[in-house]
Amino acid sequence: MEARRNAIGPSRAENFPEWYQQAIRAADLAELSSVRGCMIIKPNGYAIWERMQSILDTEIKKTGHRNAYFPLLLSKNYLEREAAHVEGFAKECALVTHSRLTKGPDGTLVPTMPLEEPLVVRPTSEMVIGEAFARWIHSYRDLPLLINQWANVVRWEMRPRLFLRTVEFLWQEGHTAHESAEEAEEEALRMLELYHTFAEESMCLPVLRGKKTAAERFPGARETYAIEAMMQDGKALQVATSHFLGQNFARACAIKFAGRDGQEAFAWTSSWGCSTRLIGGLIMAHGDDDGIVLPPALAPVQVAVLPLMHGDGDGEVLAYAEKLREALLAADPALRVRVDGRPLRGGEKFWQWVKGGTPLVVELGRREFEAGTVSYLRRDGKEKKVLPSHTFVSCALDLLRDFGKTLYERQLTLRQARTVSAKSKEELREFFADGGGFAEAYFCGDQSLEEQLGAELSISTRCIPLGRENDLGPCVADPSRRGPLTIFARAY
Amino acid sequence: MEARRNAIGPSRAENFPEWYQQAIRAADLAELSSVRGCMIIKPNGYAIWERMQSILDTEIKKTGHRNAYFPLLLSKNYLEREAAHVEGFAKECALVTHSRLTKGPDGTLVPTMPLEEPLVVRPTSEMVIGEAFARWIHSYRDLPLLINQWANVVRWEMRPRLFLRTVEFLWQEGHTAHESAEEAEEEALRMLELYHTFAEESMCLPVLRGKKTAAERFPGARETYAIEAMMQDGKALQVATSHFLGQNFARACAIKFAGRDGQEAFAWTSSWGCSTRLIGGLIMAHGDDDGIVLPPALAPVQVAVLPLMHGDGDGEVLAYAEKLREALLAADPALRVRVDGRPLRGGEKFWQWVKGGTPLVVELGRREFEAGTVSYLRRDGKEKKVLPSHTFVSCALDLLRDFGKTLYERQLTLRQARTVSAKSKEELREFFADGGGFAEAYFCGDQSLEEQLGAELSISTRCIPLGRENDLGPCVADPSRRGPLTIFARAY
Repeated sequence: MEARRNAIGPSRAENFPEWYQQAIRAADLAELSSVRGCMIIKPNGYAIWERMQSILDTEIKKTGHRNAYFPLLLSKNYLEREAAHVEGFAKECALVTHSRLTKGPDGTLVPTMPLEEPLVVRPTSEMVIGEAFARWIHSYRDLPLLINQWANVVRWEMRPRLFLRTVEFLWQEGHTAHESAEEAEEEALRMLELYHTFAEESMCLPVLRGKKTAAERFPGARETYAIEAMMQDGKALQVATSHFLGQNFARACAIKFAGRDGQEAFAWTSSWGCSTRLIGGLIMAHGDDDGIVLPPALAPVQVAVLPLMHGDGDGEVLAYAEKLREALLAADPALRVRVDGRPLRGGEKFWQWVKGGTPLVVELGRREFEAGTVSYLRRDGKEKKVLPSHTFVSCALDLLRDFGKTLYERQLTLRQARTVSAKSKEELREFFADGGGFAEAYFCGDQSLEEQLGAELSISTRCIPLGRENDLGPCVADPSRRGPLTIFARAY
Repeated sequence: MEARRNAIGPSRAENFPEWYQQAIRAADLAELSSVRGCMIIKPNGYAIWERMQSILDTEIKKTGHRNAYFPLLLSKNYLEREAAHVEGFAKECALVTHSRLTKGPDGTLVPTMPLEEPLVVRPTSEMVIGEAFARWIHSYRDLPLLINQWANVVRWEMRPRLFLRTVEFLWQEGHTAHESAEEAEEEALRMLELYHTFAEESMCLPVLRGKKTAAERFPGARETYAIEAMMQDGKALQVATSHFLGQNFARACAIKFAGRDGQEAFAWTSSWGCSTRLIGGLIMAHGDDDGIVLPPALAPVQVAVLPLMHGDGDGEVLAYAEKLREALLAADPALRVRVDGRPLRGGEKFWQWVKGGTPLVVELGRREFEAGTVSYLRRDGKEKKVLPSHTFVSCALDLLRDFGKTLYERQLTLRQARTVSAKSKEELREFFADGGGFAEAYFCGDQSLEEQLGAELSISTRCIPLGRENDLGPCVADPSRRGPLTIFARAY
């Protein structure tokens, strides 16, 4: 086996943020555009998003939700109706104020035809969907109303970062209305569970399910639930959120219904979403110093078959590669196999697929053709292996399954190794001075104490893990108070 | 069989535009939102769009294109670079000028934080994608570059109309770059053919393929090709367009490459798209006085099975309905069958599915259960029929196929009946005074003559049909000139 060096410089250990940028570039996933903070998702990156969409969309529909589409442009009055909501989004929203460009005296184009009232490019759609729900819902028979939307949203981020924080991003946002508080909260938890399953099974990402503190709650929500994962640098990434909105948005939008008792009542609503941010999480959770690593469920290509092209006898090797592809598809028609017959140098082609994160990269040369074998790299290891072709075909599915399991277990081991219990602010300070990770500490939930911890230690609460809400103890920030076990971390 | 009245008032003959609005309402497809000109696509409407997307996306990928995503917000400089392009879009574009809402002295929110430079909400993406192509393309080895995007776009329409003309709409836009003019033009024609197949096979819509005159060309294109269909009121609808852009956009965006001869050259580009407008076309082509009618390939539900619920013995009838669904799926797992067991009155439930355009609507009551039959309506007819259940199962696919064929042939007959040959302006005038349709006439292509015809007769050229470009004759507007056979019509 040839000597190896890392494909990505710097390594994760040397400079994690810079490694992240370079891994994205090496896999050709995305780039910033010349418009401030806006991202171009290139075909390799978008193919991952399409895989995510396909799985999530199927699951969202299975749970009874239907897709719809609501306007990109919102009346600013929408936002104004819910006090916390406007507070949360007014600071970072794109405003449309004119509807025409006209040549000015100096020859450049200037905005003309001012709108009667400025419009907001949606940062989220609670209010516009709420307004529609108010028209659509009349009686308890119209409930529950379960809607999902795939859309782009805009938030004026000042420090954009590919996939993690961009001015525009793609997401799905679910919006539902229910008869009772219990049903709306159940819905929020059901969707949290859906995200949990997606993260663990499709992303191979162990995640914590929990409730947010007041400081981290969605503007206007009564309760925000979230899924939190640990990245390889020990920082937390919020993978998805699910909000129990109480009657706040129903009141703001006048979503009323005639109940079973004939009385008019406000509906109870929920909303929940996840975004292209997931791709950032995927990279930071599984990537290594050779580039990104894709879990089998999300890899646009699961098995890349690379015939080595030398000129003489290429036809036979190419036919051998095609035969392998067919045998793999015969074993499982749902396998995503690609034969890359481009006449590139073997090494160049091989490294492109390795950096692209493909789970199984198969190389076929004259030697393999003559011996009836395949030489392959499983992307979670460094060593190429050789197997008889028919053996490889019969165990490809197992290899992929095992590969996914390895990714998951690596991540779980990492999280366990970097999770500590902290009894005091001093212990928190030491832990986060020394690299950090997830710190479990009792916390009273006071917003100003949380802000103080944020200012001093650059940490925030990630969640109060579900099922442990009753595990109470003296608050890490003010021992005179008590509070539930809470996860602290630095977060993306 | 019960006496029938039309479900939609007014009828098509009484008031086609109003019938259109009412058919959309009756099928619960979409509504205008309170934000001027913006549409809410409701779940029933969005499900049709998802069917369209799924078919088109598969075909677009089969022809070697990959999906990607480009920013919603464009620098206004992008538009400025191509003179015809800015001319075409500057009059109707939404401009983002501020990034914050702040409470003003009177308590209302006002836009603050003006941007250094206003941004345009994309009306189309030639320029932002062209700018990316310029970065991505270096050599002839990078060509052809074949990209597609599913996205929302905004054009400031003054007279919005559901699906047909809305301020925001959803579409797919393909953008490609090639080594030679021939390859780019071939690509434009290949995609026109893809749309043609989609229209004829999936939409059951006979369409004309043709070239646009200068007046109707896409701003900045060298040649625009389009698919044109006739609606039931005789007006034309442009279903999709495909543009050969020459080197205009490559020059504006500096898309250059090192050719096989080592010389640097500008690329040749194409772009092509179709939008949620297709849904409007579907309605106006196939709908009848009972509501919309959906072709089998695009119907979210192809067979609606409605057990009549009366209380006594409902369980048996419901089980009979479930058994029918299972038998249909056993015959073809790809069939889209829905059992609607809601406890509505039979007539109400039946009419909902009829107005929703479902190809086959099956009613099952005690009588059918006891006789082992099904009673069904094929949505292209008015009469319910009865068949033994097993016969219905074995011929369901044939019924759907035949149903699609009937829709297509009806449309073709309509178009043939309303297409005339016109030798003079007088003949054009008479034809369009008397209802109109498609008029075939020789036309020299002069833009001012076309504008004059538009002003006098409210007609425009739809296309010069492909394959008939050499069929020349004396121009209908100025017999001293000659020109190719051209289709004139009133158009949406």
